[in-house]
Amino acid sequence: MSRYQSQIIKKLVAEIAQAAGVPEQDAGIFSDSLVDADIQGTSTHGVSRLNIYIRRIQKGLIDPRAEIAIDRKRGLVMAVDAGNGLGQVQASKVLETLIPMARSSGIAAATIRNSQHFGALSYYCNRAAREGMILFATTNAEPSTAPAGSRQAYFGTNPLAVSFPTGKSYPVKIDLSTSIVARGNIIAAHKKGSEIPPGWALDIDGNPTTDTEKALMGTVLTMAGHKGYALALMVDAFSGVLSGAAFGSSIGSMYKDMDRKQDVGHFFCLLDIDAFMDVSVFKKRIDNMIDEIKACSKRPGVDEILIPGERSFKRVCENREKGIPIGAETLREFKTLCEEFKIPFTIDGAQGNA
Amino acid sequence: MSRYQSQIIKKLVAEIAQAAGVPEQDAGIFSDSLVDADIQGTSTHGVSRLNIYIRRIQKGLIDPRAEIAIDRKRGLVMAVDAGNGLGQVQASKVLETLIPMARSSGIAAATIRNSQHFGALSYYCNRAAREGMILFATTNAEPSTAPAGSRQAYFGTNPLAVSFPTGKSYPVKIDLSTSIVARGNIIAAHKKGSEIPPGWALDIDGNPTTDTEKALMGTVLTMAGHKGYALALMVDAFSGVLSGAAFGSSIGSMYKDMDRKQDVGHFFCLLDIDAFMDVSVFKKRIDNMIDEIKACSKRPGVDEILIPGERSFKRVCENREKGIPIGAETLREFKTLCEEFKIPFTIDGAQGNA
Repeated sequence: MSRYQSQIIKKLVAEIAQAAGVPEQDAGIFSDSLVDADIQGTSTHGVSRLNIYIRRIQKGLIDPRAEIAIDRKRGLVMAVDAGNGLGQVQASKVLETLIPMARSSGIAAATIRNSQHFGALSYYCNRAAREGMILFATTNAEPSTAPAGSRQAYFGTNPLAVSFPTGKSYPVKIDLSTSIVARGNIIAAHKKGSEIPPGWALDIDGNPTTDTEKALMGTVLTMAGHKGYALALMVDAFSGVLSGAAFGSSIGSMYKDMDRKQDVGHFFCLLDIDAFMDVSVFKKRIDNMIDEIKACSKRPGVDEILIPGERSFKRVCENREKGIPIGAETLREFKTLCEEFKIPFTIDGAQGNA
Repeated sequence: MSRYQSQIIKKLVAEIAQAAGVPEQDAGIFSDSLVDADIQGTSTHGVSRLNIYIRRIQKGLIDPRAEIAIDRKRGLVMAVDAGNGLGQVQASKVLETLIPMARSSGIAAATIRNSQHFGALSYYCNRAAREGMILFATTNAEPSTAPAGSRQAYFGTNPLAVSFPTGKSYPVKIDLSTSIVARGNIIAAHKKGSEIPPGWALDIDGNPTTDTEKALMGTVLTMAGHKGYALALMVDAFSGVLSGAAFGSSIGSMYKDMDRKQDVGHFFCLLDIDAFMDVSVFKKRIDNMIDEIKACSKRPGVDEILIPGERSFKRVCENREKGIPIGAETLREFKTLCEEFKIPFTIDGAQGNA
């Protein structure tokens, strides 16, 4: 995997999106979100997804020019219809609307329906943290995970996320799926020819398996058994049921369902820290917590206790310095898209640099 | 364990609390909260805790007449100082204040500092669900659980909870600790002389153990490894850091620290469903989700897929019909308290009845 300067990739992704019909400003939001995921080290939610978004736009399954509409609004909350637009664009616009609301009243929230896979939740949470705010965000996702006791994929990875601003060089960034792993991890193990750990998956009959082939025919488990099941349900109740989006197994698959929209739902709840305590005090307090945790006595063989977001921050530093790693398959997709849209494929020269 | 009519126990608990200095109305809230936990089947948070609350009041470690004070208020959020009062009483008052705020503006939130162990979170969440609202609630707790990579108890059980109203006979009730188990489960296994499952606890050197004696000298793990660690941190950031309460290992122990207050912190975020969609529509949608989950194909040996809150509801029905089970030790404590306060110990006659 070679590394490429993020600004160059961002420009190229925006050009491709614009060529596919996304308005200029929205294309900027979209490419910023994708490239940020690569910078953060979560490349599964980064530019490797560009191709599928563009293909779905071309098939009319995503409306690149959709406007957001408000289904209902009362006080500090709103139920938003994303108009089947790009999730990253619509969710970013909703967040920018919530920020001044939370600034004046301490809190604001929105549901978003009729959306898509919208990238990494922490993209939005980190944006809020930079404002001295706390965003609690959830999204539902296409079915992959069985409720406790079942062998049927009903829930998605159904992640929840929140970032807390700190006085350190990185925010506390919590962004976790309520499934034990994404299906992608099983596919990766299958490609490598290795087994998966017990507790990840069931075979088609509902028996535990460590065989990747059987696991891929079967279903993924939730994290922590019935607790993860409860959290997956919570995430879908906020993101899907409350928003008016699809939920559970009714959500369309990004890759498999090339004949219908996804109708993914999201939930944002935004708090302004300053409404509770001075942000400077909050940061001092959470810095104290970080210092205390890092000073806890370690288990044998553990060099350092890491704070959620710390490892990701180390990757951010590396990726900013050296450029973001992009796989050969994604590069090939870029090249094909550039050819189709008659955009010069200019990124070769940036290879290996920041 | 014998069963006792909940109304009779509720009256007795309120009488004892009043005798210890709790004002009449507050004693009613307090006893309702404790007895509700027993009705729900979470007797660890029920009347078995009455004795320790009273003892802490007697030692001046809880102020039974504390008023709630508002540290800061902006728009729809407030930072509350519980005045070291009874957690159940203060948190209930805060929730009753939030309900009309959320009714008019769709959402409202509060942090609460300077509080105590305040019972089961779902007590508050179920109250909100009966109003057609969704309460997301967290609390920190005395240290018992190690951050991932550590062998030191830093976080508490740090539960999070939310209840969703439904059209069924029970709400979806999600109320889970982010530690893998409460320390109480290890004590219970120790008393029985049985081993604990792998993954529950570390010995004093930080090595995994299934030996209860070693586990009790060591520390409990979080649920789901680093994900549970991240969630425990999230709960403490909302409940402790943002509220101004103690956090991490600074929180006082209810049973062990009989010379200082606990300074527990809580966090409530309350949403009015009707601000997003008609409550009747929400209930139909979540009922559909429940029906779909229950109809999922089952794993071998599984008779029924249960919804979070369903098992608890079955217990509620049984406990309402047959009375709440109360252990011999709790009964002895009741009797001693009644003697001290010269309250007639009248519950013998109710035994075995609803």
